This record gives sequence, structure tokens and C-alpha cells, in this order.
Amino acid sequence: MTPDLAIGIDIGGTKVAGGVVDGSGRILHRARRSTPHRSTSPQVVEDTIVECVDELLHAVDDHRVAGVGIGAAGFVAADRATVVFAPHLSWRSEPLRERLQGRIAPPVTVDNDANAALWAEARFGAAAGESHVVMITLGTGIGGALLVDGHVSRGRHGIAGEFGHMQVVPGGLRCECGNRGCWEQYASGNALVREARDLIAADSPVISDLRAQLGPDESALTGPFITEAAQAGDPTARELLADVGEWLGVGLANLAAAFDPGRFVVGGGVSAAGELLLGPARDAYRRQLPGRGYRPEASIVLARLGADAGLIGAADLARTGG
Amino acid sequence: MTPDLAIGIDIGGTKVAGGVVDGSGRILHRARRSTPHRSTSPQVVEDTIVECVDELLHAVDDHRVAGVGIGAAGFVAADRATVVFAPHLSWRSEPLRERLQGRIAPPVTVDNDANAALWAEARFGAAAGESHVVMITLGTGIGGALLVDGHVSRGRHGIAGEFGHMQVVPGGLRCECGNRGCWEQYASGNALVREARDLIAADSPVISDLRAQLGPDESALTGPFITEAAQAGDPTARELLADVGEWLGVGLANLAAAFDPGRFVVGGGVSAAGELLLGPARDAYRRQLPGRGYRPEASIVLARLGADAGLIGAADLARTGG
Repeated sequence: MTPDLAIGIDIGGTKVAGGVVDGSGRILHRARRSTPHRSTSPQVVEDTIVECVDELLHAVDDHRVAGVGIGAAGFVAADRATVVFAPHLSWRSEPLRERLQGRIAPPVTVDNDANAALWAEARFGAAAGESHVVMITLGTGIGGALLVDGHVSRGRHGIAGEFGHMQVVPGGLRCECGNRGCWEQYASGNALVREARDLIAADSPVISDLRAQLGPDESALTGPFITEAAQAGDPTARELLADVGEWLGVGLANLAAAFDPGRFVVGGGVSAAGELLLGPARDAYRRQLPGRGYRPEASIVLARLGADAGLIGAADLARTGG
Repeated sequence: MTPDLAIGIDIGGTKVAGGVVDGSGRILHRARRSTPHRSTSPQVVEDTIVECVDELLHAVDDHRVAGVGIGAAGFVAADRATVVFAPHLSWRSEPLRERLQGRIAPPVTVDNDANAALWAEARFGAAAGESHVVMITLGTGIGGALLVDGHVSRGRHGIAGEFGHMQVVPGGLRCECGNRGCWEQYASGNALVREARDLIAADSPVISDLRAQLGPDESALTGPFITEAAQAGDPTARELLADVGEWLGVGLANLAAAFDPGRFVVGGGVSAAGELLLGPARDAYRRQLPGRGYRPEASIVLARLGADAGLIGAADLARTGG
């Protein structure tokens, strides 16, 4: 029997999500575990992955499974075997592929989760048919990945696509990377919440409605809270999203100058704001695009595969090689 | 006889330089013409190219010539046949390959001059053996090109590598592209000269030595003049180059975050300043690199093929396909 399926495992900060995926990107079976805490040993995370894979292999005829793809948040080396650093896990220069391959029969590949999500969107989602794509994942920070001439571009060492740490404001806001003025300090869920907090701290009347909805617990001031308020019509929440969208658009114009993609795909939690985010982003992008007027303009669209993109992409990368 | 040679033609703002190039990047014969003025018709530029090619075809057994590559300053479409816009010439959506192919026997390809120079450096020069390279040409502005997985990355529409128009200062200096704060307003020969002029206009004592060397003719205040003064030890000229170098380094750190190259190659007229430019660039780059310490660091080196890079690369792209 020709193997026509693959297993994808997406390792996030809170959960390990797995699935059996067919050649058209459909998820036939799912498995899920909590992500072991970062203080536990790498062995525990491996055990969790192997459990998921075993469960999924039992759900289908395992001769149909061409490969197992792992998508992990973190820095995966260009060999697609070694996790150099993973912020949510205890992996440091972890030879993950080798360790897993000793316990899993189908061939294992490892990739960055943003690369996996990009590949899923390029094969089955918002960028299907496009050869040159920039994927932006707006969450607490900015994740990113690149499709060049139809292939995921991982860079010389496997760490291309760190767009969030491109400097957009010299001497700007301090970033956890140690620098100042990084793009993700201006275009991210964290930026959205920080700006709202600053308005509250400034005791500005423009935030009084939002603050009243918030109640006494300021920890409820999250990206989703602001997005819901904006969708319900709150003008300040809309302004906050528009500011983030404007910075998004400026950064996308920079990436358009450098890469010349045919499409930008914007995913991640903040993208739930939809046009309240993308409208201002497109305006700023068009205003900032070098050679605007004579330059063909890459479209800016929302991701379509949501939280499943990582596992679908990891599976398809394992099956097709990417 | 197997064709083992190719002809490269580099069309610059002032001269058309051609050469017969062998498989190791050596120029066996040369031809040269002045570039027709931008007010003349496209036909005149074509005639000039055809004259150069004919001269070179007569210099060798033309059965040995595998192809003719044209490198042109400007925006060349992804089909490598059409020059969409060339700032120094009268070409607008010019079907250059088709027109030339009617008059030249070997197969013709057209490419951007920065792509050609990158390819030459990657094959025979400062980036030989590297799979992921960013080329930066510092002249009056910034030219650029990208090598990804061993191939020139032209982008979806052929216009990747416009690094000079990435915004590095929000609301910064006005650029001829119509925007503000473009990188080439801070890291280029024009920036170098503008800063020196501003010091003269400010009547600052720090510029008095340079001004005395300059004499009454301020049009002599050029990039090469400042570079020579710096090389002779003038401290203000060195500061001016260091400022440009620092902005160069900041921008390179941004490109490292996005592309993860193994090497940066810096060419163009300003690169004649050598370590007076690259030293400060490397310092700023290391300071600004996201993930510095654990991230593998791309080297920053000078281009090696100088003014011949364009024609060597254009020839080799025609022979090998790039």
C-alpha cells in the first residue's frame, strides 16, 4: 500500500496537538496532551510526543503513514533534526529527530512551528498557489516564515523569519531580546495590551468605557478582551487595534521591499480582529510601499487554517519534504 | 564543440561594459561603449548592446558561446525578459530579451545588475561556497540582492532586494522614493556627502580641516573625497564613515533576523573605505543582532570582483541559469 497519510505534531507552550493528515490537508484523527512544564526533563516531552504518535498510528493502518512531522516553537537547526532552543521547553541543542526516530517507525522530521503553519497555508489555505509568501503570526510577539520559489526558506542556520526583532524605531521600546525598537514591540498582542494599560495609567477619559467593562481585575485586560470590545464598537479599542495595524503595515512594506512576495498571510491570536486590524494595515502598507503605483502589490490576507495550521503543515512537510 | 564561454553585458548609467567570460569567471575579452543618454530611444541602447555582443562574438569561436546575459540597473520582471523600469534609460516595460534575441544568435537572458553582481561574488568571489548570501551595493543609494539555497531569489515579480527602501527611522529623512526614513538615506554615499555638507553649513569647527582640503569648490565634496581624507587620517571624515557604517550594521542585523544568511557581501563605491566602514558596521551589527550570543553570526565581508562583478555574473547567469 502506498503511504498516503502523515502525522503532524504541533508542540506549543500549553498543549501538544497531533493529527493524522491526508494529502489534501484534512485531519482524519486527532490526539492531544498537555505540554509538560518547562522545568521537566526533555525525556518527558519526548514521551508525550511518542504517546501522541502511537495513539495516532493505532487509529489508522500504519503502512499508510509516510512520515511524522514535528512542529516546535523555537529555533530548529537547518538540518531539521536538532532543536537548538525552545523558549517553552527544556530543550537546548536537543537532537530531537534522532531521539524520536529510535522510538517511532515512520521517518521523523522536525521544523519550526511558523514554517509548518506557512507550509499549511501555502498548500491548503490562504496562500494556495502562491510561490512567494511571507507568513506573519501575531500573538504575544511576531512569528514569521518565508516561502521562496515554492519552498520554505529556513536560512543558512534554520532561523530565518525572525521578523519580530527587526528594528523599526531606533532607541525605541525595550524588547525581551535585549534590543530596543523591535517590530514586535509595536505590532503584537503585547503591544495592544501595553497601550491600553498606558491609557489606563494615564487616566485618560478615552479609556473610561473600556475600563468600566473591564472591572476591577486588570489581568482581564487581554488582547481578546480588546478585540471583542472593538468588534462591539468601542472606539478606543478600535483605535488601539488600528495603531497595531498601522505598525503591521509599515513592517509589511519593509518586507515587501526586501522579498517581493505575492502574498502576506497574517495569522495568530491578534488576527481574530480581522478587518479592524487588516484595514489599517493595508492603508499603512500602501502608503509606505516603495515604488507604489508602478510596483505590483502583494495582497494581505488572513490565515485560514487557524490553530490547526501547525499540525497540518508539520504533517505535510514530513510527507512531501517541503 | 561544447559551449564553455558566455558573454556578459553590464549596462550602467554611464557605460556599457561587456566581456567574454569562461567557466571559472575569467574575462577573456572585453568591449566597452558609452551608455546612450536617457533621452535617446530604446532602439539606440539596443544597437549599442548588439554592437558590443558582435564585437565579442568575433573575438572568439562563436560556437563556444553558450549564452548572452544582460545585467541592467533597474526593475527586471521575474520572466527575466522584460525591463519594467530603468532609471538611467528610456526603457519602460521594454521586451528587451525578445528584441535582442532577434539580432543575437546565442540565447539571451536579462537580469537586474545587483543580482548579476551577487551571482558573480557567490560563484567566484567573496561568497564562494555560501548557500545563503545578502549582497549590499553601497553607492549613491543601496542596491541589493539575495541568494537563497544557492539560487538568486528574485521574488514574485522580480523586484526582491530593494533593501534601501526599508524604513529604519519613522518620520525620518525624505527619500526620492517618496517615503521618509529609508535605509539608504542613512547608509549610502549620498548620506556621507549630505552629513559632511550639513557640518559645513553648521560651520562646525570639526569640519574645518576637511573644508580647507576641499577648497572653494563644494562640488568636490564627494564620497571618494571623504574616503580618501579618512584614509589619510582625518578624524571627521572617519567619524562620517563610521556613522554610515553604524547604520549599515543596524540594517544588516535586520536582514540577518529576516533571512539568516551565512554571509553579507558589501560592494559599491562606498565600500572602497574598507575597514573604516566595515569595522563600525560589524560593531553595530553585533550589538543589534537578535539572539546574539546563541545565534550563529553571518560574516560581513567586502566584495572582491569590483566593477567587473556585473558582467561576470550576467555571463555566468546566462551560461548556468543561476
